[in-house]
Amino acid sequence: MAIITLLTDFGQSDSYVAEVKAVLLSQAGSVALVDITHQIAPGNVAEGQYLLGRSWRRFPQGTVHLAVVDPGVGTDRRAIAAEAEGHLFVAPDNGILSFLPPPPGAGFVLLRVPPDASPTFQARDVFAPAAARLARGASLLELGPRIADPYRSPLPTVRSDGVALVGAVIHVDRFGTLVTNIPGERVEPGVRILIEDVDCGPLRRTFGDVERGKLVAYIGSDGLVEVAVRDGNAARQLGVGVGTGVRA
Amino acid sequence: MAIITLLTDFGQSDSYVAEVKAVLLSQAGSVALVDITHQIAPGNVAEGQYLLGRSWRRFPQGTVHLAVVDPGVGTDRRAIAAEAEGHLFVAPDNGILSFLPPPPGAGFVLLRVPPDASPTFQARDVFAPAAARLARGASLLELGPRIADPYRSPLPTVRSDGVALVGAVIHVDRFGTLVTNIPGERVEPGVRILIEDVDCGPLRRTFGDVERGKLVAYIGSDGLVEVAVRDGNAARQLGVGVGTGVRA
Amino acid sequence: MAIITLLTDFGQSDSYVAEVKAVLLSQAGSVALVDITHQIAPGNVAEGQYLLGRSWRRFPQGTVHLAVVDPGVGTDRRAIAAEAEGHLFVAPDNGILSFLPPPPGAGFVLLRVPPDASPTFQARDVFAPAAARLARGASLLELGPRIADPYRSPLPTVRSDGVALVGAVIHVDRFGTLVTNIPGERVEPGVRILIEDVDCGPLRRTFGDVERGKLVAYIGSDGLVEVAVRDGNAARQLGVGVGTGVRA
Repeated sequence: MAIITLLTDFGQSDSYVAEVKAVLLSQAGSVALVDITHQIAPGNVAEGQYLLGRSWRRFPQGTVHLAVVDPGVGTDRRAIAAEAEGHLFVAPDNGILSFLPPPPGAGFVLLRVPPDASPTFQARDVFAPAAARLARGASLLELGPRIADPYRSPLPTVRSDGVALVGAVIHVDRFGTLVTNIPGERVEPGVRILIEDVDCGPLRRTFGDVERGKLVAYIGSDGLVEVAVRDGNAARQLGVGVGTGVRA
Repeated sequence: MAIITLLTDFGQSDSYVAEVKAVLLSQAGSVALVDITHQIAPGNVAEGQYLLGRSWRRFPQGTVHLAVVDPGVGTDRRAIAAEAEGHLFVAPDNGILSFLPPPPGAGFVLLRVPPDASPTFQARDVFAPAAARLARGASLLELGPRIADPYRSPLPTVRSDGVALVGAVIHVDRFGTLVTNIPGERVEPGVRILIEDVDCGPLRRTFGDVERGKLVAYIGSDGLVEVAVRDGNAARQLGVGVGTGVRA
Repeated sequence: MAIITLLTDFGQSDSYVAEVKAVLLSQAGSVALVDITHQIAPGNVAEGQYLLGRSWRRFPQGTVHLAVVDPGVGTDRRAIAAEAEGHLFVAPDNGILSFLPPPPGAGFVLLRVPPDASPTFQARDVFAPAAARLARGASLLELGPRIADPYRSPLPTVRSDGVALVGAVIHVDRFGTLVTNIPGERVEPGVRILIEDVDCGPLRRTFGDVERGKLVAYIGSDGLVEVAVRDGNAARQLGVGVGTGVRA
């Protein structure tokens, strides 16, 4: 059974996600539909990029990923499909797939927008039909002509200032955990993690390695340095969020 | 594989939806379960009617739609099933299916309530077993006797006061977009859309046709006039909601 | 098609649930995945125990239940699997499965933690692979050695003070309904239900048996005494919550 994942900023209180799924089930037949999330903050392409970027490889090859955070819907921004490592993607061409390598590392094609597609709901009328075709086995090039210049807006990367690694918080999760863009493997043993001026100590293994209510830095489940408060909420306790500076 | 959709006001923080799905999977075997939404405001039958009414036709024929927003659960309000255009429905008889035509345009039958059904959770004990039977291929009349008088409480419709179309906001979506009950095809070219006294301009094609932060009126993905704020929240910016008057 | 249910405190705004599902679909093949809930308050093992405890028997025998509310992830708390009445479970050994009888009423085994498992995301790296093996038909003992002493932290039970049954609110649902731990069958006819000092009247059948806005006590869909406000919110109206005393 083919798998299609869905990531949007549609929320779960409207029928938008269900209308997309209705098209997928109508046009792709028997497929497994898996929600990544629909709680992306409205229009926050970077948040969508982070969450899909860390999860897509966990699915089996052949999975189709539909990712629609699309403030430019109905304008002349392009609609695209992509292929990388045996995974397939459909998305607006606004940088949400910037976790993929640029061509020719990944392949990208232009999707046609049917004239009767709603100018404000292309997830349903453009991206879902394309995802359904891919799930049924269509090749990328059957969907449209190849493009060489997908729009790219990668997440900020870490740099060194000669003394320390300098990065930023790139995500705050449900628990208030601060996910940084500092790869855990680049942190020297014993180096302390600083969120702005707050010393979060050296890297530990897990939450239980500090007392309840204390800050703890560790290598998170995506390989990046994270800072949490054991049984608490680091974002709230420190009053910080996405974009806050981090040093290691 | 049969498809069953679910729309309730149960939220997602309890086990109620899962208990309904457990019955469906136990009694219908292999089915695809699709959530429309479970975030209907408690008891808001009109909101459920709007969301199911705009989405059910997108699913394949044969789909069973379970819709339970049911403040009168356990009273003598009837439990019903319905059939229209090859789609099947189970719901309390409180108007939530008023988007269907009255008999004989659609067929309606009375569901029996087993004596051991919980008087406060008929979604699990009455509607899910009925939906499972329909998903397995039972005909509507196998479920109960036909009724000719389902309760109807249609959403407000638009009228003309001789000068303009007079309607109302019937839904506010996650983005703060105001969905009105004015069919886009009834709006003359160039006519300006007014939310109360606020001029939202003439109909545009999509959000990108106005500057960021500005009001934009357009024909939404369900064919109705909508008003949004580009990259913003119209309901919050205008301080309006369901029931607010609209003129076109 | 095998069924795997999921209950966590991961929320739905991150990719954590999807990463768990990716592992399940990769390793178990074609399975039906059913969310119980992911909205458990962070670390609230008792809430998870209540919700899974009331719903698991509704699923078909053979269902695998993955339950991860796990503030001690990565410490030396054990990871376990269990079997009872033909149902299978994987969970941290922190009491979340205390609704099961102790051995030998239910069987429990110790799960091995692979050395490369993330110390902070064992749902993905330990529990999902174990659930996938069970869904594919592995026996409990293929997963690890039997243990006789699973950690138990049952929900508080009701007692009698000679005059009345004395219990507590154990859950507040989306509607503000107060679920108590008093079994409905133990309440004598006509006895009044007290939430702290507030008289909620004798047991009724359903919400409609009182006027709108009034308190109503009844036997809930899980067999326990509940108190609600018809078309309102009892928790908010009474200003009470989990742990509040109840007498019957």
